[in-house]
Formats: sequence, structure tokens, C-alpha cells
Amino acid sequence: MGRPSDLAALAAGVLERVRTARPRVHCITNTVAQAFTANVLLAAGAVPSMTLAAEEIAPFVASADALLVNLGTLDRERRDAIGLALEIAAEERIAWLLDPVFADRSRGRADFARALLARRPRAIRLNRAEFAALAGAFDDEGAALTRFSLEHLTVVGLTGEVDRVADGVRQSAVANGHPLMPRVTAMGCAGAALGAAFLAVEEDPWQAVTASLVVLGVAGEVAATLAQGPGSFASAILDVLHGLDADGLVARARVTS
Amino acid sequence: MGRPSDLAALAAGVLERVRTARPRVHCITNTVAQAFTANVLLAAGAVPSMTLAAEEIAPFVASADALLVNLGTLDRERRDAIGLALEIAAEERIAWLLDPVFADRSRGRADFARALLARRPRAIRLNRAEFAALAGAFDDEGAALTRFSLEHLTVVGLTGEVDRVADGVRQSAVANGHPLMPRVTAMGCAGAALGAAFLAVEEDPWQAVTASLVVLGVAGEVAATLAQGPGSFASAILDVLHGLDADGLVARARVTS
Amino acid sequence: MGRPSDLAALAAGVLERVRTARPRVHCITNTVAQAFTANVLLAAGAVPSMTLAAEEIAPFVASADALLVNLGTLDRERRDAIGLALEIAAEERIAWLLDPVFADRSRGRADFARALLARRPRAIRLNRAEFAALAGAFDDEGAALTRFSLEHLTVVGLTGEVDRVADGVRQSAVANGHPLMPRVTAMGCAGAALGAAFLAVEEDPWQAVTASLVVLGVAGEVAATLAQGPGSFASAILDVLHGLDADGLVARARVTS
Repeated sequence: MGRPSDLAALAAGVLERVRTARPRVHCITNTVAQAFTANVLLAAGAVPSMTLAAEEIAPFVASADALLVNLGTLDRERRDAIGLALEIAAEERIAWLLDPVFADRSRGRADFARALLARRPRAIRLNRAEFAALAGAFDDEGAALTRFSLEHLTVVGLTGEVDRVADGVRQSAVANGHPLMPRVTAMGCAGAALGAAFLAVEEDPWQAVTASLVVLGVAGEVAATLAQGPGSFASAILDVLHGLDADGLVARARVTS
Repeated sequence: MGRPSDLAALAAGVLERVRTARPRVHCITNTVAQAFTANVLLAAGAVPSMTLAAEEIAPFVASADALLVNLGTLDRERRDAIGLALEIAAEERIAWLLDPVFADRSRGRADFARALLARRPRAIRLNRAEFAALAGAFDDEGAALTRFSLEHLTVVGLTGEVDRVADGVRQSAVANGHPLMPRVTAMGCAGAALGAAFLAVEEDPWQAVTASLVVLGVAGEVAATLAQGPGSFASAILDVLHGLDADGLVARARVTS
Repeated sequence: MGRPSDLAALAAGVLERVRTARPRVHCITNTVAQAFTANVLLAAGAVPSMTLAAEEIAPFVASADALLVNLGTLDRERRDAIGLALEIAAEERIAWLLDPVFADRSRGRADFARALLARRPRAIRLNRAEFAALAGAFDDEGAALTRFSLEHLTVVGLTGEVDRVADGVRQSAVANGHPLMPRVTAMGCAGAALGAAFLAVEEDPWQAVTASLVVLGVAGEVAATLAQGPGSFASAILDVLHGLDADGLVARARVTS
């Protein structure tokens, strides 16, 4: 790894594996994000399921290839579902990704996110406000990412104008994306679900998360050229994700490590 | 019935009745599917409602013209809502349709689906994996459909590349549809809701379910000619459902019995 | 106030303030409406949050600039969330708007809506069937609106082919809008959320609600010129809301007082 072209080719390769393997991704996610998240997974080739009920989440997780744990609309049912799902994931060694949505808006949610970090997600995806709520004060973002990754033994995917992915040793930066992306609800949540799908087919979580952010960012850039605003953009990014080819992805990827 | 042109004309006629009568369809359905299901019903001319709360589901069902029972995201609240709703539906003789989503992924859900079959849905809609989970092993699909229909005294709508509808005596086959349809979340769930709306205006459930599958399949084919991928396809199928005329429907219908 | 051009310019001004101030709007709303509501708020420049959980709704409401209380899919969790949220809103003097969805379909819901009116929403938005359920019989709509507004000390936004907004002294009428609007699920719910966002930046609730109905109605009219049916319309109205400029808004506004 290291040269930009390697990481771009990696992203194209992992996307191709998702399309071929069609991994099942069980998503514990907020009600606002469920439909768009499912559509992003389907557009990329993965197979979503979303049930939360205590009576039946176990077989869904056990037969999944990856698990997403998103803390949006975090009610009692979701807390219980997360507990059950993580037991199964640990038993079955299913990769899971944590998305601590709005950890900066609620202390209880930040505390819950910290408790989940102790249960070893393969990766965590969060924006800068959420990272600040969980990581505390820091001077140097890169050093803070490395420290956080080492402390929690997880890969950190920090999203924003430039996304950064750290695993304690390596760091990547993804400059793809478009300002319309945060104007569509659940874009970040769906991106995290895509990260979980990529974990299902790529053993190295740093590569998987980097690849997922390259794919989503490039899809967003292409979609913006087809869209008149956030409504048509939300449709277009699904179209682009579905049709994106390796050459187009590599040509547009702006990823470095 | 019998000649293809008869069933195609039937589909056009039932759709027209939905547009005129604007039946109310109460939907107990999963959170992922709710919005798209409501939009499919509205596009076809029906009026959806979706509440589940024990305190108030009774008046919603009692004032509805048909009921959808979809087992996605089957939590405690939904199980309770289903019980209450089916009591009212039986009292008020309101047609209901069962959609046992993912019965193949959870034994508990399959057991619950079997228990609901004993409460006499007017029709059941399911895909081949779900049918296998409920019907057990079989050699001949057509015979299995007839047997299942007779055993449970219901119409079976089996969806897939070719849809089949059986009522114990008659069988229809609908070859319309498009590969983008399963790439949009809740397309099958919304199709089942459309089936419930058709039950509201057509007494013969075999005709109603056949007609709903013809309409959705044709709408999907037309939408695919307008779409660039699954995102624009999801919008286009709503546009097409809303504007579909009888001539266009009959010309494209590929339905036999 | 009074001349049409004043109210049209007001609408443009309030929209501009939303875009600049980016108010946080916490939404207690039904699961069907959540995603579209969030997308409407984001398209207009506001920042939505949607959590309901008793453990964490307090900090979300306390850090919000306005609150939406929508009675769709009114389950136990939502009733509890509303109680908690209104306590915080009262303490923190946060403007809130009530949307008593389907109060005409369930007596329990109508009773609950009346109880909430006693807790002084800054405004209520409802359609004619819902208004009839809450206001009782009347001869003259304008007089009934004034009476309702005075009785409950709130601004009433009555939506329909022509929207009317009353505050006990003033009345406005908004003739903008398009027949495709009620063919998209949650359009009214999202319009109410937009009203809440406008309350966050405009102290006078009669002006805020009038302005929000002008903006939504004009956006709907422009979107209809770009759409082929309800699916593309739902995307287009988000695009238009996002891009609407003051001149276009004023030129198309049909608002009188």
C-alpha cells in the first residue's frame, strides 16, 4: 500500500468483491436512516436486513456477514438489540462497525459509545464533532487518531471534507466527496453501512474502511454532476453506486496514505 | 378468465377502480418499508395509514378498506398490533393480506407466519425462499402452490422472475418486471400493499392479486426505460404507477392463466 | 403587513434567515415521515434531529431552536417523549409546533391533541378534516379559525387547496401549491417541520407559519414543472427548496391577508 493508485485500485477491487459475494449486512440503525441505508447497500450489491426485535435478532446476525451498530434514535429496544447482536457477533466472529451518531449531542450516548468501544468493533466511523466528544481535547488530529485507534484497538474512519482512516500504524486521507452529501439525511449513516459491507469482504479493516470512503466520495462527486439539488442527488448517488466501474473510480479517486 | 387479454384488461380495470374508490389501506409494516409503501399506495390512488399503537389501531383498521400485515422488523409492538388488527378485521370482514418477509431467515418468524395463516388472510404474498420455509420441500411448484392454497384456504402470490398466483383451482403467471426491482428496498413490501389495495376493490382475491402483480410488473418495466439505476428507478416507478393508462398496461402485460 | 408583496418578501426573508442561522429542529414525528421530513429541513438549511428515547431526548430538545410534535404513529414511546420534550421546551422557552395528524381518524388521538393544545404550542398545523375534529361544527371557516386561535392562544395554520393562517387578529391566505403534494407521503408532516424551523428564526408565529406555507407551496409549484409524477416530484421539491431564490419566490407567491 501507500501509492495513491494502489488505494484507488483497492477500492475498485473491494467494491467488485461486494458485487460478487453479495454479503448480508445486518443493520441496527435509526429509523430515519433505515430506508436510505438499505438502498445504498442494495445499490452496491450487498443484502441488508434491519430487524431489532429481541425474539429474532439472533438468527439474523448469525447468518449475516457483517453488522452495523448505529446509535441514532437510541431507544431501549435498540440498546437491547445491540447487546444481543454483539454477543452473537463475538461468538460467530462477525465483523462489526460502530457509528456513534450525535455522540456530541447527548452525554448518555457518548457513554454508551465508549462502552461499545470496549467490545471491539472492527472499525468506528464518526465525524469531527463526534470524535471530539469521544477522544477529548487534542492538538494534532493525526496523532489523536492514532492514539484513539491504539487505545481501543479499532480502525477509526473520521469523515468530513477530507476523510481520514487510521489503524494505529497507517493513515489514509480521502479527499473525494461533495457539499450536497451532508444535505441528504442518513448519507453518513449509509456510508457507515457501506463500510460494514466492505468489512465483510476485506479482512484488513483499514483497507476496507478506506475503500468504502473512496467509493462513496467518488459516487457523490459523480452524482453531483447529474443532480439539480439534494433530492435528485440522493437518487443519483444510488444510480452511480450501482453503475460505477473500476476505471471511473480509479480516475476520480483522490486518496493518499 | 383465462385468455391473456382478459387478465390484462382485468388489471387495468382494477387499477381504475382503485383510482376512483381511493380505498383506505391500513398497513402494519416494517419501518424500512413504510415510506416507500405509502408512496406506492398514494401513486396508485389509495390512501395509506400506518399506526401500530395498541391505543388507537382499532379505529384505523375499522375505518380501512383493506389491511396489510407485513412481518418485517417484527417487534413486540408489531406482534401486538397484528393481534388487535386481525380481531377488528374479522369482526368488520375487512380483507387482509399477509407478507411473511424473511420467514426463511428466522424460525420464530416462520412459526408466527404459520399461526397467522390459520387466521385466514384473503391472500399471502411471498418470494420463493419464504415459500420454501413455509411450505416445506416439494417437487412441482405449481402443485405445491395449489396444495398450499387449499390447505390454508388462501390465495398465494409467489413473486420472483415470474410471479405465480394460485387459489386452489386457478393459476396465473405474470412475466412482467425488471431486475432493478429487487435493488430497491421495500419493492416487494410495497407490492404487497398494492395487493391489499386491490383486494379492497375486487372481491375475487385471485384476480386482485394477479392484477396487482401485473400493474407493478408493467410499471417496473416502463420505469426501467426511464431510469439510470436503482435510485432514479424508485422515483420513476411511482411516476409510472401514477400515470399508467389502460392501453399501455394491456399492451405490455405478459400474464397467462 | 397586509399587502401581498409584503408577505411574499417576508417569506423570502425568513427562508434566508433559516439558511444563515441553520436552526436545529428536534422532531417528534412518525416513522413514515422521518426521512422525508429530515430531507426537507436539510434542503431548507435547517438541522434535524429525531430521537425519542426517554434516556436522551432532554439534551436534544434543550439544544434545539424549535420543536415539532407530530402525532402520527402515536405509540407509548412517542406519548412519553412528547411529555418530556414539552417540559424542556417550557423551561427553555423553545417554540414548538403541533401537527395533530389524523385526529379525525381516532378519538383518542383527538383527545390527546386537545390536551397538548393546553400546553401552548406556538402554532398548530392541520388539514380541514383534522380541524373539524378538534374545532367542532362551524358555519364560517374564518370565524372558526379566529375563535380557535383565541381559545387556545395559538396560531392556526389550516392547510388545503388554499392555506389559511390565523392568530386571533390577523388572517392570511396562501393559494400556492400543487395537486401532486398530497400524493407524496409526509408532505404535510414535512411542511409542519418547516413551520417549526421558521418559528426558530421569526418571533411572530403568524408570520413564520404564513412564510413557511408560501415557501412550501411555491416550491411545490416549481417542482411540478420539473416532475413526471409523484416520485420525481418528491425529489424535485427538495431540489427547489434548496435552490429557491428571493426573486423567484416573490414572483410566484400568491399570499394575501
